[in-house]
Amino acid sequence: METFVLVHGAWHDGSAWDPTVRHLESRGHRALAPTIAGHGKSAAKNVNHAQCTESIVRAIVDRALRDIVLVGHSFGGTIISKVAEAIPERIKRLVFLNAFVLTDGNSLMDESPPHYVELFEKLSKESSDDTVMIPFPIWREAFVNDADIETAKWTYAQLSPEPYQPCKDKLDLKKFYSLATPKSYINCTEDTALPPADGGWHPRMSSRLGLHRLVQMPGSHEVIYTNPDLLADKIWEAGRD
Amino acid sequence: METFVLVHGAWHDGSAWDPTVRHLESRGHRALAPTIAGHGKSAAKNVNHAQCTESIVRAIVDRALRDIVLVGHSFGGTIISKVAEAIPERIKRLVFLNAFVLTDGNSLMDESPPHYVELFEKLSKESSDDTVMIPFPIWREAFVNDADIETAKWTYAQLSPEPYQPCKDKLDLKKFYSLATPKSYINCTEDTALPPADGGWHPRMSSRLGLHRLVQMPGSHEVIYTNPDLLADKIWEAGRD
Amino acid sequence: METFVLVHGAWHDGSAWDPTVRHLESRGHRALAPTIAGHGKSAAKNVNHAQCTESIVRAIVDRALRDIVLVGHSFGGTIISKVAEAIPERIKRLVFLNAFVLTDGNSLMDESPPHYVELFEKLSKESSDDTVMIPFPIWREAFVNDADIETAKWTYAQLSPEPYQPCKDKLDLKKFYSLATPKSYINCTEDTALPPADGGWHPRMSSRLGLHRLVQMPGSHEVIYTNPDLLADKIWEAGRD
Repeated sequence: METFVLVHGAWHDGSAWDPTVRHLESRGHRALAPTIAGHGKSAAKNVNHAQCTESIVRAIVDRALRDIVLVGHSFGGTIISKVAEAIPERIKRLVFLNAFVLTDGNSLMDESPPHYVELFEKLSKESSDDTVMIPFPIWREAFVNDADIETAKWTYAQLSPEPYQPCKDKLDLKKFYSLATPKSYINCTEDTALPPADGGWHPRMSSRLGLHRLVQMPGSHEVIYTNPDLLADKIWEAGRD
Repeated sequence: METFVLVHGAWHDGSAWDPTVRHLESRGHRALAPTIAGHGKSAAKNVNHAQCTESIVRAIVDRALRDIVLVGHSFGGTIISKVAEAIPERIKRLVFLNAFVLTDGNSLMDESPPHYVELFEKLSKESSDDTVMIPFPIWREAFVNDADIETAKWTYAQLSPEPYQPCKDKLDLKKFYSLATPKSYINCTEDTALPPADGGWHPRMSSRLGLHRLVQMPGSHEVIYTNPDLLADKIWEAGRD
Repeated sequence: METFVLVHGAWHDGSAWDPTVRHLESRGHRALAPTIAGHGKSAAKNVNHAQCTESIVRAIVDRALRDIVLVGHSFGGTIISKVAEAIPERIKRLVFLNAFVLTDGNSLMDESPPHYVELFEKLSKESSDDTVMIPFPIWREAFVNDADIETAKWTYAQLSPEPYQPCKDKLDLKKFYSLATPKSYINCTEDTALPPADGGWHPRMSSRLGLHRLVQMPGSHEVIYTNPDLLADKIWEAGRD
């Protein structure tokens, strides 16, 4: 019986975790999936990374949660790294699900491939509110490559534009890299949202954790939609003692 | 209901796809596996790459096929790249099955490891008709590593010497790299026909496609023989919208 | 019906193979898992690599075994390489199970990551008998990452300190690299005992074998404990003609 706090990635809000939450609860665990500030269809998008982090810290502290397994997906990896700096005493283990593990001092964009940086710069400038919406063809081929077209379209309809500032904020992660908190990395083996030729999520991002537990599962970057049942099992394997 | 055109690799002819064709047809699809010019046991072997390509173009045009999912295996990747340049309007999607994606201006041999180049040079010179037959020990260990010895021997008996000229022809692929045709890459995870230490088929070859859909399955370079049922499923996943 | 000789890795003794031996025997094979000299809880630890090798050679020759499939796990890869040099005529095939394949002239420590070298140097100096015991947190996260905590603790209790000298001995492997003995490599896909970012076991170690048969299975470095049933199947696939 564990307490999981699940932190979503870019374009998502907490509801993306709904099926995973149900599967974890059906196995007897407690699971919570707060929405990061500035995220979701109805949110004001003018946030920075510190405000994003603070919103998750508040969700944990307000509920007086302790001994939590804190899970971050994709962009959510940058959030849980900073949450761990803020409230390490509440966190039993960090679990990165094909998530960014930033080098100290870098922003998410600093670690993104040039063709994404170029595209996101352009899209954010074209937006009215400094946000970026991922184009459907990229989403379909590189994010939900394991879905049929109906599922791909349905998942795309769940998304909302991502505030760009948190992706550009450079993060001081010195404390994160000094924490003794146990860490796990879940790698989905068909995830090409980061280019595999550069080391992709694993081992490029995972190796930065130093000693950590690797768990793998088949699937794309969006197994929260395409295989939440198995994902719940893997989050459990990654989070257990 | 899709129309699949399946293009075989070196040493094979179209009949290597027979079980895959049956599995695709049993799922309600149309599937065609023409033999490339200069290939097969009874063929004259004096062909170049352009003639190989032309034979597949003819197979498609003569049957007035449209909206096809064009699949290439291994050497067949070089063929479907040039077929796509010739008749892009007939092709809905290109699927590379552990296939060569050549850098513009290169030949297949330019992208092959030195020990294969040395061996194939020697074997072609020893042949009477500028062909290369792969030695059984290499076939058994690096191509059908997932087969038992009886299957390995049976598959080897299906092969015929490969015309060497098409492997040496340097290909202008500028148009291929400009095409907007959607692309997928199927990677068999135990395929060591290209050395994994150099990036193997995936991500070395797959990454050259730019935006593409990755699909993976267990198995060797020759899943057309060792797991055609699952291969048919993966070709469908790779080829769907 | 094959004869398998199974050579364990560091910290283990032959009993680690007990479940695998039973599974191989239940499939009709003969399987033997001798303990390397200087290994096991009651052994004197003052051995060098040559004495380790000699103890396995003796186990094979004394039983007059021939046509054996010789399997080495981890450190055991360095042993079977030298055993193959000593008695090549008795060996049908070498199978490396996430095992070291040393570059000629290197020791196991020469091929280990700096953080392990530093740690093992320190631990060996602190020991009374020049041995190294792996700390439990490393064992749990990087060696038995696929186990629950009870299994992880049970497996750790089976271990005993590893004599350090055999890990430091530089090995002349010129004859090994000249042998025509067929070779296979079994890679467990969640094994992070060697850092995947450096190429890990596969393809970094496997590629050194030259032509070989690759077999993969899910699991950690310690599938001898966590999945011996599937391991027995994979040893059979790796060892068959």
